[in-house]
Amino acid sequence: MTTMEKIVYRPARDELAYTFGGRMPVAHLRSGDILQVHTEDCFGGLVRGVGDLPSQVCRMPYLNPVSGPFFVEDAEPGDTVAVHLASIVPARDWGVSSTFPHFGALTSTSHTATLQPPLQERVWVYQIDRKAGTVRFHATATEHSVNLPLDPMIGTIGVAPGGFEARSTIVPDSHGGNLDTPELRAGTTLYLPVNVHGALLALGDGHARQGEGEACGVGVEIATTTTLIVEVIKDVPTAWPRLETDTSIMSIGCARPLEDAYRIAHHDLVNWTSTLTGLEELDAYQLVSQAGRAPIGNVCDPNYTVLAAVDKAFLPCLAAPYGGVHARLRQAAAGPR
Amino acid sequence: MTTMEKIVYRPARDELAYTFGGRMPVAHLRSGDILQVHTEDCFGGLVRGVGDLPSQVCRMPYLNPVSGPFFVEDAEPGDTVAVHLASIVPARDWGVSSTFPHFGALTSTSHTATLQPPLQERVWVYQIDRKAGTVRFHATATEHSVNLPLDPMIGTIGVAPGGFEARSTIVPDSHGGNLDTPELRAGTTLYLPVNVHGALLALGDGHARQGEGEACGVGVEIATTTTLIVEVIKDVPTAWPRLETDTSIMSIGCARPLEDAYRIAHHDLVNWTSTLTGLEELDAYQLVSQAGRAPIGNVCDPNYTVLAAVDKAFLPCLAAPYGGVHARLRQAAAGPR
Amino acid sequence: MTTMEKIVYRPARDELAYTFGGRMPVAHLRSGDILQVHTEDCFGGLVRGVGDLPSQVCRMPYLNPVSGPFFVEDAEPGDTVAVHLASIVPARDWGVSSTFPHFGALTSTSHTATLQPPLQERVWVYQIDRKAGTVRFHATATEHSVNLPLDPMIGTIGVAPGGFEARSTIVPDSHGGNLDTPELRAGTTLYLPVNVHGALLALGDGHARQGEGEACGVGVEIATTTTLIVEVIKDVPTAWPRLETDTSIMSIGCARPLEDAYRIAHHDLVNWTSTLTGLEELDAYQLVSQAGRAPIGNVCDPNYTVLAAVDKAFLPCLAAPYGGVHARLRQAAAGPR
Amino acid sequence: MTTMEKIVYRPARDELAYTFGGRMPVAHLRSGDILQVHTEDCFGGLVRGVGDLPSQVCRMPYLNPVSGPFFVEDAEPGDTVAVHLASIVPARDWGVSSTFPHFGALTSTSHTATLQPPLQERVWVYQIDRKAGTVRFHATATEHSVNLPLDPMIGTIGVAPGGFEARSTIVPDSHGGNLDTPELRAGTTLYLPVNVHGALLALGDGHARQGEGEACGVGVEIATTTTLIVEVIKDVPTAWPRLETDTSIMSIGCARPLEDAYRIAHHDLVNWTSTLTGLEELDAYQLVSQAGRAPIGNVCDPNYTVLAAVDKAFLPCLAAPYGGVHARLRQAAAGPR
Repeated sequence: MTTMEKIVYRPARDELAYTFGGRMPVAHLRSGDILQVHTEDCFGGLVRGVGDLPSQVCRMPYLNPVSGPFFVEDAEPGDTVAVHLASIVPARDWGVSSTFPHFGALTSTSHTATLQPPLQERVWVYQIDRKAGTVRFHATATEHSVNLPLDPMIGTIGVAPGGFEARSTIVPDSHGGNLDTPELRAGTTLYLPVNVHGALLALGDGHARQGEGEACGVGVEIATTTTLIVEVIKDVPTAWPRLETDTSIMSIGCARPLEDAYRIAHHDLVNWTSTLTGLEELDAYQLVSQAGRAPIGNVCDPNYTVLAAVDKAFLPCLAAPYGGVHARLRQAAAGPR
Repeated sequence: MTTMEKIVYRPARDELAYTFGGRMPVAHLRSGDILQVHTEDCFGGLVRGVGDLPSQVCRMPYLNPVSGPFFVEDAEPGDTVAVHLASIVPARDWGVSSTFPHFGALTSTSHTATLQPPLQERVWVYQIDRKAGTVRFHATATEHSVNLPLDPMIGTIGVAPGGFEARSTIVPDSHGGNLDTPELRAGTTLYLPVNVHGALLALGDGHARQGEGEACGVGVEIATTTTLIVEVIKDVPTAWPRLETDTSIMSIGCARPLEDAYRIAHHDLVNWTSTLTGLEELDAYQLVSQAGRAPIGNVCDPNYTVLAAVDKAFLPCLAAPYGGVHARLRQAAAGPR
Repeated sequence: MTTMEKIVYRPARDELAYTFGGRMPVAHLRSGDILQVHTEDCFGGLVRGVGDLPSQVCRMPYLNPVSGPFFVEDAEPGDTVAVHLASIVPARDWGVSSTFPHFGALTSTSHTATLQPPLQERVWVYQIDRKAGTVRFHATATEHSVNLPLDPMIGTIGVAPGGFEARSTIVPDSHGGNLDTPELRAGTTLYLPVNVHGALLALGDGHARQGEGEACGVGVEIATTTTLIVEVIKDVPTAWPRLETDTSIMSIGCARPLEDAYRIAHHDLVNWTSTLTGLEELDAYQLVSQAGRAPIGNVCDPNYTVLAAVDKAFLPCLAAPYGGVHARLRQAAAGPR
Repeated sequence: MTTMEKIVYRPARDELAYTFGGRMPVAHLRSGDILQVHTEDCFGGLVRGVGDLPSQVCRMPYLNPVSGPFFVEDAEPGDTVAVHLASIVPARDWGVSSTFPHFGALTSTSHTATLQPPLQERVWVYQIDRKAGTVRFHATATEHSVNLPLDPMIGTIGVAPGGFEARSTIVPDSHGGNLDTPELRAGTTLYLPVNVHGALLALGDGHARQGEGEACGVGVEIATTTTLIVEVIKDVPTAWPRLETDTSIMSIGCARPLEDAYRIAHHDLVNWTSTLTGLEELDAYQLVSQAGRAPIGNVCDPNYTVLAAVDKAFLPCLAAPYGGVHARLRQAAAGPR
């Protein structure tokens, strides 16, 4: 990490990617490099007002674009790549949300298929006030409006999957992808498995905020300028995406039905807890059962997302996860350059 | 509520109930009455040390006893009964948790049936320090221990179901029951549908605390002295249990798979939000999608529990839920007597 | 079985039952007794034409009535009661089906809750020709019609559940109930656990036929005259309902999600196969995996139903299930009296 | 179809494919061409005796190889490709099955994650007697053995998915893939959507037979010589895989939970029925509800598979599906050349 570089990347429209895997890298990163990357919103920036219905202005499969992929030097299958989100800045002073035909938690869908027609497709435009730290909701049928806290996050971030697969950016899975959890905010370090030579990291789909579960299927969608810093952790495999903040550790499970996402996340957190503390497995299971939180990410994407989280303060004899990389990257990102 | 009474009830062992419905009432309550009730723990107090394995010292179906039922005067089908939890005090200075054969989220079960043998059955004993506000975890296989915050809650509370049914106290459903959510702490008002003449309220299964989802199937189980106050809301039906605190409203869904619990809760919260604010339905859906939280209750009981919650501060033009009964009961419970 | 009796029971309208459990018996049966019982259809006979919309002519919870319960002498908890269905005769020359608001597999429901309005409620009337063995479908919007094979079955049959519970007749579970499988036709023997003194057997909800899964939520609903014969199998517990025909054995699982119903049924069939053949457990698992069938019962009721079935011809060294009671009851039912 | 050709393809070991999509074609097919293709078994032929444990002799992701892909001339996105299976001949006189660690319906898995250790890994070897039409099961722990009917099928067949995706051959989805249904036997025509230029058809994973649901996760796995004939149906899109035999039509749904697979399949069959007969949608829903079958394919793969089937005899005014291609291909495959 001696020759830390700052890489700036802003994709042209036709450079946006729609899969994890199956794409050539757009730039190289080394451990310790700072990446400042522009990300488009999930509609490719095409939904700009209440008249821009997504199903009309967007064309499948050109949804949920990501910027990248970035080749991470020295990342090989069996390693872990740590990605510290240093800042996520909304690129415009507005965001949009919508309903989308047969997509979302409170509608039948392509898979929870019923004979009912879809809910009405509608667009909501939010004003973003970065100084005030607010996102303003306006009702469409009445005059109601209200400020919600601005809480920017990255909805989609991941690496190429293994097994020669290429997965749509709509899908969250063990390689990351469309995780859609508010926990992916600035200050968080994400751990991802490396499945292919160079990892091939990509990200996009910023949200000014979202509720847990992303019930209507769409957050407050924004383009962002996101700054992150990466580090390869050699010879340490990671099975499912994990998060670390200053105060807690979290495992992410992606699956249907939703209880399998819960099971994956908690199975992983119990093992991780056991490894970090020396607690025997059933003791770790017990402690997580009483001390854990289980924030829901999304209940609308092809796989649902649940997190298993526990505060570091509740973990006795805790060793620093992944050798203290979170603190190191956090400091490096904050440092002078 | 002019002649408010304080009723004290402490069941003898053979007065404990194991179903909601199908039981005669043990006492009468009127709107505004204060009830101070002793509740046993989910093991009927029979698990007192690491040698007391639940499957050996407890006998099916004598698990998860509740105190009651209480006949609520003037409560008729179609009404709602509001139950404000004024205080939940651990009755002993210890609590217990355990694994239980083929029960819990990280094991196969009677219903997620596999050919694998059960996890080892084991008991954990926690020290409760009410002054310090802590619950102390001790590992069983190593010397680890750690303090967790004391956060007492009622795991099981409900009324008789309709349709001539009687349901095991293990089951959470639209009548309440084994909801197992940490949100059922002191200061919260619970709204339940009245399904039968007199409602027939009962409660038990206190936890000194629990993690979201109650992964191992068992919280930090305690006997409690719980103080509550009830009020009947005439001619206002309630479909699924709802909660109100000073700062938020929440709907509870109980179902399998877990996404159906999420759907029920959010469907109800969207409708409730629409009713309380005047927001049109899709506008309410949108607002809840961005502002909502979705805390998981349990992922181990016969039905899983998910809550849909939203802060009152994020609801424009909010009318007081159920005519302001939460504030009224809160004040009445706190008042001099 | 020396003094076999024939009991005939035809309930008056106000004698119909709407729960398993929580009801006093209407008659006594002894092992070997023949019972001829009239059963009403799931609408209580109130839907008689296309103008009789179920949600208008029926009143909750007075749906899916059963005849009984019958006290089975000598049946005690821990025993099994065998019920051989000797004949199921449609009581009228017509049957009805319908859609029902927010009920069925291809609509959102009370639990798979969405914001969409229900499908149109509609009634279909079928002509039944017992001589020809046909059920005639008539389309409602066009002139199409077609004959389907008459294949009468009992949709709902069960005993009182344990644990002081009383369950709606809409629910299938380990006590039987609304199993809704076409396999419950004449010639089949059903094995049910005895959970309470006297078992308390009841049945109803005949179908002239139904498709697998009962997609629209309603079969071709008929009143029936059903003849059955019972025998108590002492000290042999049964966990979930099982079926036996001349050629196969089947286990029934009831749960959500549907894969848990599959798991329960196959877990039980593997164990049953192992017990009857002497095959070691994993060998039985392997054999069932290659030789088994898995007919779906219902995908609309509060629990879904899947069967695990295997032909007797594929089970080496097969001992007669439950000591040969199927052959014995089959012969007794057919014999002269 | 004037210049029908017979193409013979036998892949070398390093020509086997492990994804649908992301691979270059190995040969070209035109409508009417006969393809005779050798397929390896799901273990790549490496499991040859009870000592060859799959997790030891196979290396991820080199499981479930397919032969192909074949470029189908004139197939463009928006078209349908019909694939008639003319014959499926076991290539050896034995087949194998196994348990596999944390894979299958009666074990916890990577996704239904529990803390339990896996079931014992074990291999079963079956003798195949093509003349007698039998597959012989031998128990491993005892001396039991029994003949089961030989019923060869193709477990995995599909085309490249859309959206630039490449999916593991383990996965069944709307592009086909690891459908694992016994209905994919000789005599059946499979309809698949064309998602990319040339369709890119591939197949493998033959089974000498399998039970419904493939409970242990593995059929009686065989290499095959499979003969098929294809035809492109221009400008007719297909959403999910469909099957046609001489007597019935079937739609296939792939999803988790299992009820969503059921919903997808039945939603598609209702629409297909409506299109082919002129029945209004709810009438078609009603008819399928009473006349349909719902055979389960697999309950072990990343998506589960359920079919919705109805006999042609029960469909009034039935037009020939896809313009009669099934009869045409069946005849062409049988004809002299």
